[in-house]
Amino acid sequence: MRKFRKILIANRGEIAVRIIRACRELGIQTVAVYSEADREALHVQLADEAYCIGPAASKDSYLRFTNLMSIATLTDVDAIHPGYGFLSENADFAELCQSVNIKFIGPSSSAIARMGDKSSAKQTMKDANVPVIPGSDGIVESLEDAIRIGRDIGYPVIIKATAGGGGKGIRIVDNEEELVRQITAAKQEAEKAFGNAGVYLEKYLTGMKHVEIQIIADHHGNVVHLGERDCSIQRRRQKLVEEAPCPTLTPDIRGRMGEAAVRAAKVVHYAGAGTLEFLLGPDGNFYFMEMNTRIQVEHPVTEMVTGIDIVKEMILIAEGHPLSFRQEDITINGCAIECRINAEDPNRRFMPSPGPIQFYLPPGGFGVRVDSAAYPGYTIPPHYDSMIAKLIVWGATREETIARMQRALNEFFIEGIHTTIPFHMRLLQHPTFISGNFDIKFLEVHDVNESHSVKPELENIQR
Amino acid sequence: MRKFRKILIANRGEIAVRIIRACRELGIQTVAVYSEADREALHVQLADEAYCIGPAASKDSYLRFTNLMSIATLTDVDAIHPGYGFLSENADFAELCQSVNIKFIGPSSSAIARMGDKSSAKQTMKDANVPVIPGSDGIVESLEDAIRIGRDIGYPVIIKATAGGGGKGIRIVDNEEELVRQITAAKQEAEKAFGNAGVYLEKYLTGMKHVEIQIIADHHGNVVHLGERDCSIQRRRQKLVEEAPCPTLTPDIRGRMGEAAVRAAKVVHYAGAGTLEFLLGPDGNFYFMEMNTRIQVEHPVTEMVTGIDIVKEMILIAEGHPLSFRQEDITINGCAIECRINAEDPNRRFMPSPGPIQFYLPPGGFGVRVDSAAYPGYTIPPHYDSMIAKLIVWGATREETIARMQRALNEFFIEGIHTTIPFHMRLLQHPTFISGNFDIKFLEVHDVNESHSVKPELENIQR
Repeated sequence: MRKFRKILIANRGEIAVRIIRACRELGIQTVAVYSEADREALHVQLADEAYCIGPAASKDSYLRFTNLMSIATLTDVDAIHPGYGFLSENADFAELCQSVNIKFIGPSSSAIARMGDKSSAKQTMKDANVPVIPGSDGIVESLEDAIRIGRDIGYPVIIKATAGGGGKGIRIVDNEEELVRQITAAKQEAEKAFGNAGVYLEKYLTGMKHVEIQIIADHHGNVVHLGERDCSIQRRRQKLVEEAPCPTLTPDIRGRMGEAAVRAAKVVHYAGAGTLEFLLGPDGNFYFMEMNTRIQVEHPVTEMVTGIDIVKEMILIAEGHPLSFRQEDITINGCAIECRINAEDPNRRFMPSPGPIQFYLPPGGFGVRVDSAAYPGYTIPPHYDSMIAKLIVWGATREETIARMQRALNEFFIEGIHTTIPFHMRLLQHPTFISGNFDIKFLEVHDVNESHSVKPELENIQR
Repeated sequence: MRKFRKILIANRGEIAVRIIRACRELGIQTVAVYSEADREALHVQLADEAYCIGPAASKDSYLRFTNLMSIATLTDVDAIHPGYGFLSENADFAELCQSVNIKFIGPSSSAIARMGDKSSAKQTMKDANVPVIPGSDGIVESLEDAIRIGRDIGYPVIIKATAGGGGKGIRIVDNEEELVRQITAAKQEAEKAFGNAGVYLEKYLTGMKHVEIQIIADHHGNVVHLGERDCSIQRRRQKLVEEAPCPTLTPDIRGRMGEAAVRAAKVVHYAGAGTLEFLLGPDGNFYFMEMNTRIQVEHPVTEMVTGIDIVKEMILIAEGHPLSFRQEDITINGCAIECRINAEDPNRRFMPSPGPIQFYLPPGGFGVRVDSAAYPGYTIPPHYDSMIAKLIVWGATREETIARMQRALNEFFIEGIHTTIPFHMRLLQHPTFISGNFDIKFLEVHDVNESHSVKPELENIQR
């Protein structure tokens, strides 16, 4: 067992603040790093030490191995917490940390690598007897293969470029005839876009929810799942709202998903916090999509319903502690929802809205949690992710949580920039959202964004 | 069953904001009232309607029946929530509300009156078989009586003026000889100070904790207790820190105190939220002190460990709803501590420090709740209570809660005025506080206030 004296946080924004908070509660000193654009960032001010690691561009600062390792060595830290994004799922960086005897707070580099590659992750899941989306095993070699697989898995079928991303090279076909016609075109498009003509096939599933399982594993072979999060409210594959538990999940399916996630983690000898993302169908069938081998943005909703501080657990696990709880100790208490507050204008296609915050007052009171690096007078730099705060609300029931979130959104005052608060206020009133019966296509189908702002400014109204 | 459409909040500051939050979550409109000194107060800005009811002095505004009732009638409210302080325990005001068919959110005026009078409250408790502090039943008529009672209850004995308050006219005597000598002097002092020479005797108890039981009762005869709060950290009888559960209470004593509190509430046909304050001795014996027939400042710690929104329950009870839970549904989950953040200078004998807040950033993250009416640029008026925020922290264990409170205090940035934050930071590090073995004399005996501030300012430190 090692006791960390000092941790370097290789990140910025709210997650850097989140990690500093966990360290402070554990009595561990913190080293912040920052780009030139982040000199006045809150994480810089809250940490015990802070060092500039380069210019604004992430590739020259937050992603630069050498700069990070110089500071880590200079400050003599015991461990590095990578947060999410940036280097959090970079197996090479994890390897490098290990090689200089600095603990990377996350799983082993081999577990990261194995889960980071889509096709090896899928194979690993099959080995662990975790359901995956039916489709071709890897690249489709010939038209004949494609036809055979199409008949096997049934239509509609989705054609995806193996080197693809961001929705490019994706085609959905409803029958064999369309498949034959589109597969050649898809290959040509993939060759053109990515220099790689490889495509693969998957069953196209509809009415699916994005439901993920939070797992936590120690270095002693113990793996526990902390239940699920429903993250189906997405815009262009970006999660906007997450909740725990999933409003439509039965205890039976929860149990089966949880067991599948634990099996998967055990197969790769996982240690730390991780998330298995699934698609969950209206029939109760679920399919593995991918595993995130790091802390996730939406981890607070799980913390609120289980009472477990996941970031602190990550650190304790990295120190070598066994988990302090067993699966049977975990209970899901009430309901929690998280709204991601982005510096974007929801009335202008979510256009980024960086700049100075003139007035800032987060909501408070019972059941309200704010994770943010914003403060009055802070200027949001244009170089990074637009998320500036996470508003997380707990209630004894989902109904109470929704009412409380509406109340909290209404008293979250951020002036000087546009934010997604008005979007969330409209979403939280939408009958489909309230019903809980929404799938990942919800925001494509329902325009919750048409009306104008319904939120008053905080000003001294003389009535 | 009545459904409230609109509620008037006859209060100011954080409790007015607290009640507005509860109303909003229940879909009830709110009417704020404010004195001329409170024009820019947050409760004024958060309410649906707001009306000035008079000059800064409480007696001319927040305490003035006629002004409040005019606004209540004018705005056609269904109910009035009095908060704490001001008119919250004024039986005449509760009576007046009833007479004009506006529901007073609290118990009946008769329950308020019965519990408001010290000697009738004590008699009521005896009737309910609730232990009270041994002593004279009311005023001591003669020296012979005093001697007899002294022998009966045992020394030390405390002599108190029946019309007293604020510690005036209190004498502690260790034996019969001293009693004889002091009782005459005490009577003369009481006559001089209050125009009433009546004194009574009580056993002087040492090593006592202030432990109170939160009860909640509906109009259908159901009474449930929500466990206890330890409020022993007091300065000049003002609570500064409260926690739930009491760190030294055994389940057995908790059960007996809870049952006693429920019995007492039933005897007076109590409805609403109320608190029975006890002294708890190191031997496990407890004695009734008084009952607060209103919401208390420290109610959030109970909310955090039970998950029950007490202010919302008060409103639902006033509407006529039966309680939605039974005694066996109540569980105490983890530990919660509240620090009262006052605009006072702890390094200068807690001298009030009103004035403009230059910079304001409350702490956030997991387990942290802030109930406050402060905001950046707000000027704290000098006319009222100096409490400007309540910082409430929850943790899975008391140890985690203390570490989290230290972390949260450290990132609570209020600039421009003095606050009690540095005091709390020192208190939370005190080994006696950490042990949980403190009594109501703790702050008299231990000077936690000697050292200088240990808290850095939030500024852009170039490191």
